[in-house]
Amino acid sequence: MAAVFERIAIIGAGLIGASIALAARESGAAGSVSIFDADPDVRRRVREMDLGGVRDAAADAAREADLVVLAVPVGAMAAAMAAAAPGLKAGAIVTDVGSVKRAVIDAVRPSLPLDAFFIPGHPIAGTERSGPEAGFATLFQNRWHILTPLSDQGDAYAAAADRLAQFWRALGANVERMDAERHDVVLAVTSHLPHLIAFNIVAMAEDLESVTESEVVKYSASGFRDFTRIAASDPTMWRDVFLNNRDAVLEVLGRFSEDLAALQRAIRWGEGEALYALFDRARRMRREVIEAGQDTDAPNFGRDS
Amino acid sequence: MAAVFERIAIIGAGLIGASIALAARESGAAGSVSIFDADPDVRRRVREMDLGGVRDAAADAAREADLVVLAVPVGAMAAAMAAAAPGLKAGAIVTDVGSVKRAVIDAVRPSLPLDAFFIPGHPIAGTERSGPEAGFATLFQNRWHILTPLSDQGDAYAAAADRLAQFWRALGANVERMDAERHDVVLAVTSHLPHLIAFNIVAMAEDLESVTESEVVKYSASGFRDFTRIAASDPTMWRDVFLNNRDAVLEVLGRFSEDLAALQRAIRWGEGEALYALFDRARRMRREVIEAGQDTDAPNFGRDS
Repeated sequence: MAAVFERIAIIGAGLIGASIALAARESGAAGSVSIFDADPDVRRRVREMDLGGVRDAAADAAREADLVVLAVPVGAMAAAMAAAAPGLKAGAIVTDVGSVKRAVIDAVRPSLPLDAFFIPGHPIAGTERSGPEAGFATLFQNRWHILTPLSDQGDAYAAAADRLAQFWRALGANVERMDAERHDVVLAVTSHLPHLIAFNIVAMAEDLESVTESEVVKYSASGFRDFTRIAASDPTMWRDVFLNNRDAVLEVLGRFSEDLAALQRAIRWGEGEALYALFDRARRMRREVIEAGQDTDAPNFGRDS
Repeated sequence: MAAVFERIAIIGAGLIGASIALAARESGAAGSVSIFDADPDVRRRVREMDLGGVRDAAADAAREADLVVLAVPVGAMAAAMAAAAPGLKAGAIVTDVGSVKRAVIDAVRPSLPLDAFFIPGHPIAGTERSGPEAGFATLFQNRWHILTPLSDQGDAYAAAADRLAQFWRALGANVERMDAERHDVVLAVTSHLPHLIAFNIVAMAEDLESVTESEVVKYSASGFRDFTRIAASDPTMWRDVFLNNRDAVLEVLGRFSEDLAALQRAIRWGEGEALYALFDRARRMRREVIEAGQDTDAPNFGRDS
């Protein structure tokens, strides 16, 4: 494939940043890749992994890049943009991979050069692992990539957004566009709340006096183990998500708690029909997720076969 | 292997009942298997599947059996025992596979013949599928099987419990014993609460006005999809679990809600350090689950590779 971008820079070499580097190289979507990470130890490891040209300053990595990808936790976006900005060439495209979009736009804009195009993005892809060693080239294959372009930006901006979409498609993703506020509400439901609940139940189980941690671990195959996977995700990333998508998360969490209270009441009063109706309804959603190609159809995710 | 039981009867041919039939045959743990299911359509399907000798009455299936396994939802245990009892031979062993133990003991005892041995049990194994077609012979391999023998039952009962443990080991399971009340508290944490939460979040997402169901499905790979798997489990089985383990479930649910409220408050007040500490702690549990052999170490359960 002809490169979509001659040179790309990746700021932040975690699971996502490393996967972009690998996918861009394997697909040929980028002519060359330069990488910066704020952690010297990560830079050292990335040098050994040979993911691209590692630089010791964000501005050096960004220099001459046609596309700069900010792949740091949401709370570190402002600093990453400020550090990369001095190296940006005129007309460079800047994007990010943050799980929250409105807060990232607000964080990036103050230090964004006027002659650069900022097109926020979010790959709906990942695993519970962190760090560059967790990256792999096929992470974005057949996953959605959401772009939330800024409004009223003119033709050059629209062309830049199209080119960025082309880059993500070259990495195997399906590209969708929506506005930042809508993204933050949708992801609060599909991602932020599920993670919050998983973190909560796992931490709660650890704290129980009535049941030991080893009992929880031993019998976790009865349901609990699924939650431990999500709860193993990077704590810094998730702290930043909740601090930066507060309103949408609190809104959907309020709804969750309200429904859970109703369920609690149905159990207390032995309302079997209400419980059955709710459980039966929940079942249908699984079928839709599988039909949409968003999960495997194998029982137990295929892990026990 | 020499058969542990010459003849076994399985009452209820769902995922678990069918898996026992298949595993018993494959391992040679049973000389022969007879099967009854209250649903004529299920009996017809099981006949076609050739899982064992299908009978049209529970008592007929139980006749001459050395072991009778009640593999029906917890709420149907009393009726299953009552239906099988007239066929039971003296000295027969009766067990069950219910996810709740105290309520099953209370349900089974009234119609249990005095010359039979009832040893309650619960295999910590399953998938989100239901019905005989979902069964497979390796379901119990390397999974825990909990027996909750009744207390003060004498030597013959103890020998029967040992023999039942030997049967489950022959099916590949690791056998553990605990008392029924403890089982119900431990499983409320590791299984019943996780399922309740999964049912709740999936039903809630379906009801939202702010986000469409198709958006939830489309972006479910960001976390939500994991919950849909658990929420696809059999609604009758789960209704019965919650109706029959009410006190333990309400207790642990109260604790979950309390902790969730604290987490909600931390988000509202922007308490980043508290969030980080909790998320970081939850991570460790995943490692323990994997080290205990209770889940795969592959990222995303290996399903995206």
